[in-house]
Amino acid sequence: MDIAFVLYPDMTALDVVGPYDVLGHGPGVTPHFVAAALDPVRCDAGMLLAPTTTFAELDRADVIVVPGGKPFDVLAEGTVAEWLRKVHPTATWTTSVCTGSTLLAAAGLLAGRRATTHWAVRDLLASLGAEVSADRVVREGSVITAAGVSAGIDMALTLAGIMWGDDVAQGLQLAIEYDPRPPYDSGSLEKAPAEVVAAVQAMMLSDFSADQNKPAEV
Amino acid sequence: MDIAFVLYPDMTALDVVGPYDVLGHGPGVTPHFVAAALDPVRCDAGMLLAPTTTFAELDRADVIVVPGGKPFDVLAEGTVAEWLRKVHPTATWTTSVCTGSTLLAAAGLLAGRRATTHWAVRDLLASLGAEVSADRVVREGSVITAAGVSAGIDMALTLAGIMWGDDVAQGLQLAIEYDPRPPYDSGSLEKAPAEVVAAVQAMMLSDFSADQNKPAEV
Repeated sequence: MDIAFVLYPDMTALDVVGPYDVLGHGPGVTPHFVAAALDPVRCDAGMLLAPTTTFAELDRADVIVVPGGKPFDVLAEGTVAEWLRKVHPTATWTTSVCTGSTLLAAAGLLAGRRATTHWAVRDLLASLGAEVSADRVVREGSVITAAGVSAGIDMALTLAGIMWGDDVAQGLQLAIEYDPRPPYDSGSLEKAPAEVVAAVQAMMLSDFSADQNKPAEV
Repeated sequence: MDIAFVLYPDMTALDVVGPYDVLGHGPGVTPHFVAAALDPVRCDAGMLLAPTTTFAELDRADVIVVPGGKPFDVLAEGTVAEWLRKVHPTATWTTSVCTGSTLLAAAGLLAGRRATTHWAVRDLLASLGAEVSADRVVREGSVITAAGVSAGIDMALTLAGIMWGDDVAQGLQLAIEYDPRPPYDSGSLEKAPAEVVAAVQAMMLSDFSADQNKPAEV
């Protein structure tokens, strides 16, 4: 089974590595890390991920994983959306994590369909035609979307259960010891203290606004 | 603040990417990805992480993060342990995730001290001189160890709170939307169904035994 993990500049590494470290250890999986070119891709906080293939080379996959981060340059360029339009029809499952949902929307995969995303870009995703849900994982036909960053782990375990059965998925959860006990209960808009939400929202929305100007300028 | 993330062959990518995507977005952080050479490092399921510096070049750090995976070759070679003995005295915090604890032990940082690790290697870590705990995160002086793989996220949020205060740590948790809702409750030895534990344990222990023969043969 070929799983394509999409890489692009300013992506969030955990968006792709959460699903990769669940699904990549599944039975008979060959992972592919696909990007515009083979040069290492710089993530949003400086980590370098090296692709193993390119959008030009890889024309099919059984599963596609599209991470988020700051995908506004690639949204404007259209490269990832174009690749998704070509390869999605070959895939049994096409998935996104976090703001990766906007790339699925740009490819036309979410028109009028339920989907989730990072809480900070719900309005943006709605403006791209999706019916936005606040759920952590949303399955709609062959498309599965996850909420922000760490939700990719929950999405991957859900998908592992669908593809390989409960025992394998539970084994993968045990192997990564996913028995979360964060020291704070601050992981969602509803739970985080109001001043923390305001601070993070201001920071993220200013990032997004600055980046979103780019597509408009094209 | 300089944070050194250690990379080596057959490591588990999520062990380093969980802490990186929490701590790497902290205030004033410069992340360094340090390995024996600058060639991309192949993780245990095929992902390629590209180092930004080498053990020879990087001789200090404020925080060190040592991931797990299958560190048995590097345990035998002693490269990471040697680097840790040199750089740990310069660091405010030295941390490990999963089987990365065995590299801390090999460097002499855990002798007679409480530490945690992946559930499958508790006996191995004890044989290396640590007082092994089943806790998810253990802080002992300037050394913080985490249990298997995903526990690195909990460790990093704990450390973010210590270094930067609760508000910043809660903001980082909200930014990665770490409000886990896995579809199974199978993330620990105590919670996973007995047959799942047995299957995963057999697989992991055979891996570990095969790998552990290597140091013995040197």
